[in-house]
Amino acid sequence: MEFRKIGSVKFIEGGVCAAGGFRANGIQCGLTHEGAALTTKKNDLALIVADDECTAAAVYTTNKVKGAPIIVTKQHIKDGRARAVIVNSVNANTCNPDGIEKAQAMCRLAAKALKIKEDDVIVASTGVIGQVLPIEPIEKGMPELAEGLSYDGNSRALEAIMTTDTMPKEIAVEFVLGGQVCKMGGMLKGSGMIHPNMATTLTFITTDADISPELLQRALDDTVKVTLNRVSVDGDTSTNDMVCVLASGKAGNKTVKKEDEDFEAFENALYNIMMNLARMMARDGEGATKLVECVCTGADSDKTAEIVAKSVITSNLFKAMIFGQDANAGRIYCAVGYAQADFDIEDVDIDVSSPAGKIALGRQGNVVRFSEEDAARILEEEEIQINISLGDGTGSAVAWGCDLTYDYVKINGDYRS
Amino acid sequence: MEFRKIGSVKFIEGGVCAAGGFRANGIQCGLTHEGAALTTKKNDLALIVADDECTAAAVYTTNKVKGAPIIVTKQHIKDGRARAVIVNSVNANTCNPDGIEKAQAMCRLAAKALKIKEDDVIVASTGVIGQVLPIEPIEKGMPELAEGLSYDGNSRALEAIMTTDTMPKEIAVEFVLGGQVCKMGGMLKGSGMIHPNMATTLTFITTDADISPELLQRALDDTVKVTLNRVSVDGDTSTNDMVCVLASGKAGNKTVKKEDEDFEAFENALYNIMMNLARMMARDGEGATKLVECVCTGADSDKTAEIVAKSVITSNLFKAMIFGQDANAGRIYCAVGYAQADFDIEDVDIDVSSPAGKIALGRQGNVVRFSEEDAARILEEEEIQINISLGDGTGSAVAWGCDLTYDYVKINGDYRS
Repeated sequence: MEFRKIGSVKFIEGGVCAAGGFRANGIQCGLTHEGAALTTKKNDLALIVADDECTAAAVYTTNKVKGAPIIVTKQHIKDGRARAVIVNSVNANTCNPDGIEKAQAMCRLAAKALKIKEDDVIVASTGVIGQVLPIEPIEKGMPELAEGLSYDGNSRALEAIMTTDTMPKEIAVEFVLGGQVCKMGGMLKGSGMIHPNMATTLTFITTDADISPELLQRALDDTVKVTLNRVSVDGDTSTNDMVCVLASGKAGNKTVKKEDEDFEAFENALYNIMMNLARMMARDGEGATKLVECVCTGADSDKTAEIVAKSVITSNLFKAMIFGQDANAGRIYCAVGYAQADFDIEDVDIDVSSPAGKIALGRQGNVVRFSEEDAARILEEEEIQINISLGDGTGSAVAWGCDLTYDYVKINGDYRS
Repeated sequence: MEFRKIGSVKFIEGGVCAAGGFRANGIQCGLTHEGAALTTKKNDLALIVADDECTAAAVYTTNKVKGAPIIVTKQHIKDGRARAVIVNSVNANTCNPDGIEKAQAMCRLAAKALKIKEDDVIVASTGVIGQVLPIEPIEKGMPELAEGLSYDGNSRALEAIMTTDTMPKEIAVEFVLGGQVCKMGGMLKGSGMIHPNMATTLTFITTDADISPELLQRALDDTVKVTLNRVSVDGDTSTNDMVCVLASGKAGNKTVKKEDEDFEAFENALYNIMMNLARMMARDGEGATKLVECVCTGADSDKTAEIVAKSVITSNLFKAMIFGQDANAGRIYCAVGYAQADFDIEDVDIDVSSPAGKIALGRQGNVVRFSEEDAARILEEEEIQINISLGDGTGSAVAWGCDLTYDYVKINGDYRS
């Protein structure tokens, strides 16, 4: 999958270690859960640490069921400062009576190994819900994890946060802030079609840019809305979703303190990171074979456009049709029609495109004649774009999703064992 | 599947012909659509007609895209009166530029053959969206369809309205209204997991009870809310959904004109009809192997209970887990947690039951220990009940759904051809 670029950023290597001053590591500490046939064969514990304390911001799941690590992290970054992130996969540490104590213990162990303050540690967990988290493997693994930290350890850390992900997802950019070259990198875990309880979306971003805690939080809030929140969630909002950013300020730019050009440049860098991570997540949806991008334009507001684009992207019928490579325009109209937003269906046009071409599927609320051969050629591709024009204004939005496949059912029919 | 009985009704045979004075028929007139390999091998055109004009009421889809037949039917039963229903499957007559003319033509043809008024005809269509409806097969078949009408033709009519349904769905009851024995019967088409654009839920109900148009409409509105609208719709609200009732008044009961005991008895009969049709629809969900009933109690209102029950029933992760017979309590908490309603997750208890037994999966927001063997035995059954208690009041609701299977993807990956 190629990265998509908006504005002036340059893609670079290194993920969360791209910005100088961040070390990372991942190990297999041997977390497991009841009913699992084997201890996981991949890394399951990750650590990211900055050379000095950073400005920090985070966004969390809106699910009423919140993973214990979220509660602890919220407490720890209340002051807008943090220095390290400890994350485990395999076990979500959620819906457990002793979840908070265990999340606190993870922070304590990391802080001790790193000789930093406990409340400078961000903690996250992803995996099965409702299984008591064994702290012993984490305690035992911590010295090795800390000793192995390195300025190019991003891949080891990334492996440790993956669950049903079939591909690693990381990205980094270089951008200019007040004449100063800055770097920003991120990694994400999550299988996009859905945010399942075991495939939580965790995203960790590091940058050497200098920005105030308030504006860092604002940039993150703004960007989450139009990237991660635009990936088809299918209602299944995870209990453990978390996105956090650490900004070290080491690049030496003038601190971004107001919504000026520098803030825009910072937001643009963050958008490039998170939009591409979102696209990777959708493409790697559980069992997915295709990335679908739904672009809605001509809406009376961006909100209307978002509701329509998400309605299409989350329709199981639409998703199954994309898997079947069947240009059933009626299903798209159907999904547009039940979107809870205000527009006239008689004004709605629908096109489908891919690298193989573009055709009209519907005009003014009616399905039009099109060549089934052209449609089949377009839908054979791995990246499909659906364009929906509401003919009503200048509002627009993009949402990302994937197809619904046999493998989705297989993966989710029996996740625990 | 056994019918479930609430209050004092008696199940009888005959479907839409159970109440005296209603004839029905179904034929294969040869509707087809572009891309279909063959003309359908089953009946595709149905007619139901009452001996005299009836009181009529209907409820329609809320999708902005409305099938042309819905627009015509609305016009025809504005006066609260109707006498016949003409329905075709295979083609939904929706998103077509000439849809309304075609729907009107169907009414005209039926009225002519039956020698009744055109605006006493209710019209419905179900099938593929966005294909022009060929009127010739309907015109040619109408004489045969009308001639073959009989007081026991319910099964032939029922076959004609089915699309991806794998089992016919009809039911009838006897009940007492003001000392007078009345009958009511209904048939439904629809594959429950989703209301797909091609598997519209059409429901036709007939009764010999005497009731005013206003109260008939009220009873239908009330009952749809707690039956058909409680089947997992997964967002995919069809463009052609329609439920209609014809009440002939031939039973000779005192006309139901106000919300008294008789109205309650009438509503109870209607509830028994529609609740069982809803359960059949869920059980026959596309590709489904199990019926899932989610009962939410202890809510601050019935509305809250409904939101929670539907949130569980529509979760793809939950559905895939039911298919996999995997008691993943965390997924149920997750779906409860993202329900957009007001309650404390710390008060939520979860049980699962089936004819094989009942076990606790969660207490006060935490997953509890349970025997995996017991859970497996319970989940092996074909009818599964999930009980969710919010510990917050006396509001309750039931919702019905099914599992998400490989066959769902298969059926919907390539429906048109």
